[in-house]
Amino acid sequence: MTFNSFGKIFSFTSFGESHGKAIGVVVDGVPAGFSLNENDIQKELDRRKPGQSKVTSERKEEDKVDIISGIFEGKTTGMPIAMLIHNKDVKSADYSKIKDVFRPGHADYTYETKFGIRDYRGGGRSSARETAMRVAVGAIAKKYLKEKGISIYGFTREVAGIRAEKTNLNVIEKNSVRAPDLNAAKAMEEIILAAKHHGDSVGGIVEIIAKGVPPGLGEPVYYKLDSKLAEALMSINAVKGVEIGSGFASTIMRGSHHNDKITKVKGKVKFETNNAGGITGGISNGDDIVARIAVKPASSIAIEQNTINKKGKNAKISVKGRHDPCLCPRAVPVAEAMVAIVLMDLYLIAKTRK
Amino acid sequence: MTFNSFGKIFSFTSFGESHGKAIGVVVDGVPAGFSLNENDIQKELDRRKPGQSKVTSERKEEDKVDIISGIFEGKTTGMPIAMLIHNKDVKSADYSKIKDVFRPGHADYTYETKFGIRDYRGGGRSSARETAMRVAVGAIAKKYLKEKGISIYGFTREVAGIRAEKTNLNVIEKNSVRAPDLNAAKAMEEIILAAKHHGDSVGGIVEIIAKGVPPGLGEPVYYKLDSKLAEALMSINAVKGVEIGSGFASTIMRGSHHNDKITKVKGKVKFETNNAGGITGGISNGDDIVARIAVKPASSIAIEQNTINKKGKNAKISVKGRHDPCLCPRAVPVAEAMVAIVLMDLYLIAKTRK
Amino acid sequence: MTFNSFGKIFSFTSFGESHGKAIGVVVDGVPAGFSLNENDIQKELDRRKPGQSKVTSERKEEDKVDIISGIFEGKTTGMPIAMLIHNKDVKSADYSKIKDVFRPGHADYTYETKFGIRDYRGGGRSSARETAMRVAVGAIAKKYLKEKGISIYGFTREVAGIRAEKTNLNVIEKNSVRAPDLNAAKAMEEIILAAKHHGDSVGGIVEIIAKGVPPGLGEPVYYKLDSKLAEALMSINAVKGVEIGSGFASTIMRGSHHNDKITKVKGKVKFETNNAGGITGGISNGDDIVARIAVKPASSIAIEQNTINKKGKNAKISVKGRHDPCLCPRAVPVAEAMVAIVLMDLYLIAKTRK
Amino acid sequence: MTFNSFGKIFSFTSFGESHGKAIGVVVDGVPAGFSLNENDIQKELDRRKPGQSKVTSERKEEDKVDIISGIFEGKTTGMPIAMLIHNKDVKSADYSKIKDVFRPGHADYTYETKFGIRDYRGGGRSSARETAMRVAVGAIAKKYLKEKGISIYGFTREVAGIRAEKTNLNVIEKNSVRAPDLNAAKAMEEIILAAKHHGDSVGGIVEIIAKGVPPGLGEPVYYKLDSKLAEALMSINAVKGVEIGSGFASTIMRGSHHNDKITKVKGKVKFETNNAGGITGGISNGDDIVARIAVKPASSIAIEQNTINKKGKNAKISVKGRHDPCLCPRAVPVAEAMVAIVLMDLYLIAKTRK
Repeated sequence: MTFNSFGKIFSFTSFGESHGKAIGVVVDGVPAGFSLNENDIQKELDRRKPGQSKVTSERKEEDKVDIISGIFEGKTTGMPIAMLIHNKDVKSADYSKIKDVFRPGHADYTYETKFGIRDYRGGGRSSARETAMRVAVGAIAKKYLKEKGISIYGFTREVAGIRAEKTNLNVIEKNSVRAPDLNAAKAMEEIILAAKHHGDSVGGIVEIIAKGVPPGLGEPVYYKLDSKLAEALMSINAVKGVEIGSGFASTIMRGSHHNDKITKVKGKVKFETNNAGGITGGISNGDDIVARIAVKPASSIAIEQNTINKKGKNAKISVKGRHDPCLCPRAVPVAEAMVAIVLMDLYLIAKTRK
Repeated sequence: MTFNSFGKIFSFTSFGESHGKAIGVVVDGVPAGFSLNENDIQKELDRRKPGQSKVTSERKEEDKVDIISGIFEGKTTGMPIAMLIHNKDVKSADYSKIKDVFRPGHADYTYETKFGIRDYRGGGRSSARETAMRVAVGAIAKKYLKEKGISIYGFTREVAGIRAEKTNLNVIEKNSVRAPDLNAAKAMEEIILAAKHHGDSVGGIVEIIAKGVPPGLGEPVYYKLDSKLAEALMSINAVKGVEIGSGFASTIMRGSHHNDKITKVKGKVKFETNNAGGITGGISNGDDIVARIAVKPASSIAIEQNTINKKGKNAKISVKGRHDPCLCPRAVPVAEAMVAIVLMDLYLIAKTRK
Repeated sequence: MTFNSFGKIFSFTSFGESHGKAIGVVVDGVPAGFSLNENDIQKELDRRKPGQSKVTSERKEEDKVDIISGIFEGKTTGMPIAMLIHNKDVKSADYSKIKDVFRPGHADYTYETKFGIRDYRGGGRSSARETAMRVAVGAIAKKYLKEKGISIYGFTREVAGIRAEKTNLNVIEKNSVRAPDLNAAKAMEEIILAAKHHGDSVGGIVEIIAKGVPPGLGEPVYYKLDSKLAEALMSINAVKGVEIGSGFASTIMRGSHHNDKITKVKGKVKFETNNAGGITGGISNGDDIVARIAVKPASSIAIEQNTINKKGKNAKISVKGRHDPCLCPRAVPVAEAMVAIVLMDLYLIAKTRK
Repeated sequence: MTFNSFGKIFSFTSFGESHGKAIGVVVDGVPAGFSLNENDIQKELDRRKPGQSKVTSERKEEDKVDIISGIFEGKTTGMPIAMLIHNKDVKSADYSKIKDVFRPGHADYTYETKFGIRDYRGGGRSSARETAMRVAVGAIAKKYLKEKGISIYGFTREVAGIRAEKTNLNVIEKNSVRAPDLNAAKAMEEIILAAKHHGDSVGGIVEIIAKGVPPGLGEPVYYKLDSKLAEALMSINAVKGVEIGSGFASTIMRGSHHNDKITKVKGKVKFETNNAGGITGGISNGDDIVARIAVKPASSIAIEQNTINKKGKNAKISVKGRHDPCLCPRAVPVAEAMVAIVLMDLYLIAKTRK
């Protein structure tokens, strides 16, 4: 497949517009005989859906998944698994104003220029609604990897410069921003609500940690674990940066500090530090995989902005509606999903290499 | 092809180990009838080769390219273009110490663990010597894009936290670190030499700007310009982060400041700012493409470090030899190449979309 | 994508089992701005659906297509086009006997052995019901190619050794076997009904001709027009052979007779013969593309046969039900579709080569 | 990679023109730790090289392979294996006459029309010299498969309608035409020499049998074993048809005869016949894989033929030189190689499916 597919062995192809009949995905390469049902998918989708808290969009979308194929008597058959989410909470009237005016920060102008046509309803294909299907695919990958001892955790590390200094994985789902630090979470929530109150939005950093990844995942030199993670994560709407391990902070370190020294402790290989984020030479080294993404402030804001319309005339726009003032809380399950997808693809590929 | 190939229409497959007979690459999808000769390639390779200045490795590798196929009477024929660089300055003796001991920060441990075998001579396939072939491919892409009005510039934006505040593209090739700011260049050079003097290394940030890119390059939603750039750049040895436009700095901005407002000035579409780095919705918007990569401090350092050997016993290692104390100056042409390759692939693909 | 995808630029991914909720397909790479609606698809599906005549299966499946995405205001948007056919005429009881017994000639044994699990209802994924989605995709390709002056015709050349000696394209849709020769059609129908009467089945040869194909489609040396046609056609259920132009008959010709001599007639390049079937060196030469496929006699027959069951014990089976006694009439639109798909993919790719 | 690559996990990319500096190939996805050296490759190349007997071209090409990368201390490292054959016996003068005149049956006209430029020396990239690299890749696959109990045999089944009625695999390499029947071989040789004497050429059928293939290779529904074999074999120069098992002969059989009945004999699954050629539903069933290809009479003949020149004027051509009067004997190792390549790719892929 082409532009709407991702992955080599474990792979998927998604489709659908924000306000079309449905969005969906076809997942191929899932090994046969693996237990899977709609609940496995739905519980992850519920973490992404809008209306979860006051810091996310207030839209009510049930996002109920329907598995169409590839499962028989509760198990995968090795055949493609298609999943659909029918679009329900579509208020087309909300979007009539954006039909002819390009929203700054959005893909309106580039889609129109590239394709000469654009489904403007809710942003069409460029809407982050598409990421629901990534979460659905990721749910399969997460379940598969879990059985192999691999767990994936995502959380909001920063919002508008406010940093979660602790990394308590147990509290992530217990606060509205999905921070791993309850104190930081409170401050993050406040700054998000303040921005929302002014019709504005804020950005932040989402971090993903994968634990239990065996050494050996990643294929040099152009199907490396880190390069596929970068591709997968950068393809998420609103992401403007990806870093692995110490990332951009590496650039101010000396080699003698940055190199993760290796030791044998009680018969096990240990790295003294994990600046590599669990990846050397593009291959997992057995340590935790650590990645972070820069999430820009949401583009849909009520504050009026300069722009142009379809005819190329200067115009003004105020994007009203029930938008997320900070994308991070809902980006967390999406980022986890993309990491899980990359790991599962590389896990299966690794079976062919020896 | 598989793990050592990159690209969809304009694509390449590379091969070869650092101290094997040769390294090489096969480039496919180059349109027919395009003028090309070895000088076009060599001039870019000369920017990457070691021994250029006192801040790079002192090894002397001529890195002379030999075009094997795909050119007839000075023009491309549409057939695959194979290029070889024969390895010459190979001092195998330099590397005998690393045969059984894993160098921290390098891929020695992961290759050995994954494949059960490893060509340890000069790092084998995991050596950054492989990037010479990327530069060779990028030279083709740069020449092709140049004819379409697209120019690509790379430079060192930071070294060890020292930032080039100016962006004077004319001075890049006039200083040893390839900074776009001669004052910063001097400070950068000093800090590199100081680290080298202590047997240590430093990291930095390389930035790439592509000018003249038309709107419309990039294919939603999984073959986006930004996600392919992230993949391409993260696959380069020592890169730990990639950002587009305002990147990680976006995360502390408000939406009202981050959104690039659009105006029509003298009949032309202009963006008031370029926080998007020329990409919205994964598609080029006509503004400059801006990407930055985090380059870790070089892993090969003379300072002694803890590690383990092949038998799993604790050991010490001091990586002697003629290594780069800072990888940025030589990473510049490699990063330019990867950006050019992505752009050329997407340029050709865009022809099929309307 | 992986195993259930086909094509490079114009490509598709299909899914669904014979007796599951639905079968469907996602089509990617369709150029934007192209008029398309459900009628364009439905009219081709109607040519493949069962129950058309007494020589095909008497099952009644409406096979009504539903376009889910990728069309806006009657035109393609460049985004993936998903299509669904909901399964309706599913009589699961008909198939309960095959749950534990492998039907000879079918994929029951190989699916069970390979995957360890098998959706036995109606043959599951291995059912030729999957080919409906190929026809749906082919309908898009045929419409696109038609606008470029390319027309594709398929017909039954032989049934059980009875050959259509004439090639009258106008009568194809006017007889039950889709032969291009009404006399032969009558004899073919009789032999099919005779086999059906005995609980047996017959095979035949389907031929496809593409007219108006410009020279230059096909990419040497492993994405050739003929090799992609062979792949596409051989992947259709029941096909055991593919030939291009004079095909197997070439093997008894001399080079001096087989070579298609070239002449210029009234300013146009003409080939004196078309043994090449319109393809030399893997590239279309401007003459008609001619391909033929060998369609084996249908495997589902009422005559009792030896086989084994899931436990590996010897068993007997008689496959009752409303099966096609000859697959050719309904294979015609499927074969046309696959040829159209390959041509459209190569048509779009050719735009990138100069 | 793109147009000059084949395979998904075990894959290769070839390059080079008939009379360029060298031809070569890069093989990726070979599992690590597998013993391999140049002799393994050379012995297969020696079966394809010209000058072996009086029924093949009399050119003397040593076709000496040089492995450039991917092997360390006699074993594969999992890294790409590049191989080169330097061109030696290049008599460019032989080909000066074809510079401006298109040889009927050859790719001259289509390459010139498609690309607007053509390396006419020895047919350039369209020359069957390219198939040497397929044989080199196939040698790796054959050795790998051999260790898994899979053996591949190719032979000439027919020449100019003369059929080898016996299938004695032991005599194949003991006669000039590689027939499995010494009586037929003698008649075949005679008819080839007679054609050669008249400046003409003959065609034939090559058959390939793979023994020991386990059930389960092939991925429904578009990466089937039969469809990949068809693609692989049809991409070989001069092949105009591919059939599996009973192939075109299936079309005159009844279902009750064509279906391979299954029985359990002494605890083993047996098929009473092998009309399926070892493949049902696109998946190997454990029986012998049987494929046949139609090889057209060689296009290069001394008999004068009508054609046109580059300027579009009518012309005559007599293709002099040391050409093969029948391509079958040398096509045998090429066809074996392509079958081996497909099987190895699917063998590795199958590891990921359960």
